[in-house]
Amino acid sequence: MNRQLIEAIESRLREVINPKRYRHTMGVVDAAVYLANKYGGNAADAHLAALLHDFAKDFSEAQLKAYVDKNQLEVDEILMEAHELLHGKVGAHIAKKEFHIENEAILKAIENHTTGSTNMSTLEKIIYLADFIEVGRDYPGVDDLRQLAEESLDKAVLKAFNNTIVYVISIEKPLHPNTIYARNEILKLIEGAKK
Amino acid sequence: MNRQLIEAIESRLREVINPKRYRHTMGVVDAAVYLANKYGGNAADAHLAALLHDFAKDFSEAQLKAYVDKNQLEVDEILMEAHELLHGKVGAHIAKKEFHIENEAILKAIENHTTGSTNMSTLEKIIYLADFIEVGRDYPGVDDLRQLAEESLDKAVLKAFNNTIVYVISIEKPLHPNTIYARNEILKLIEGAKK
Repeated sequence: MNRQLIEAIESRLREVINPKRYRHTMGVVDAAVYLANKYGGNAADAHLAALLHDFAKDFSEAQLKAYVDKNQLEVDEILMEAHELLHGKVGAHIAKKEFHIENEAILKAIENHTTGSTNMSTLEKIIYLADFIEVGRDYPGVDDLRQLAEESLDKAVLKAFNNTIVYVISIEKPLHPNTIYARNEILKLIEGAKK
Repeated sequence: MNRQLIEAIESRLREVINPKRYRHTMGVVDAAVYLANKYGGNAADAHLAALLHDFAKDFSEAQLKAYVDKNQLEVDEILMEAHELLHGKVGAHIAKKEFHIENEAILKAIENHTTGSTNMSTLEKIIYLADFIEVGRDYPGVDDLRQLAEESLDKAVLKAFNNTIVYVISIEKPLHPNTIYARNEILKLIEGAKK
């Protein structure tokens, strides 16, 4: 565990995200480390990925798009439309550029925590899920999801995808295809394991 | 209106679908013709497409897959997994082969009524929607959808997509990406019209 790096990130985080989001981030760190220990993930990687997952979350739409343009990030149409999904991609780039994190597993976990993706690593699943179950979260169904997270990482991630899809429909936003492909894949995996 | 063709199809339908589905089909015909008259669609095309939309719905999984193989239909992985979506594709092929329907708009409306697609024609929207609001349908929310169908074809189709996505999640089946792309597109269209 690189204590110096973590302190440097924490210090920068206090400048770029609001206090409430900082508390959320610390909750995700705790949940991610817990899940990593429980499901055989790398706890140090989970710590770093969780710490950085929302680094760019308080960027404005203009800031996010300017960052994408300036750094020529490859971004699909729906990410540009639903800019609230963009902070994963931008956060991963900042993790690499500003904090010199080269570990692809960590970078992908940061990048994909907003949409999910196919072929998710254990770390990607952990960060995706930790974001929804950290101690500060309070929404209908969160306790069911926490319970499921104790039973099965895959089942809990599937439930988190399903919740997200239903929520995105309720707020009339576009659904990212990656979420759908990821959800179908993990559903198939779970169904396959039943047989 | 080709009365002879319609009678020939009706006669065959009584052989291949059960009586309940035959009544559903007649309900879809009425709803589709109504919507075509209301929204500037071709009522004769709507009649034919509605009549044929569920032609293959009572085929077994084995029959559907055998038909796909024999006729070398192009079918994606999710259609093969969720075979309940396959009858649209198979029905469209039968419409062409057995009833010599060459009108591509009708064939596409039959084919895509199970999943939706991007760039849907008015006829495709009408068949997709009529399937959900025909008089025999009785499920929570059907009256809201009927009401919306009086106000806006696009808004009602969007609502039908959203309902379908939430339903497919509830029954733990794969979501077809075409439904998601279609839903996002029509959402964008409606949002654009608001501006």
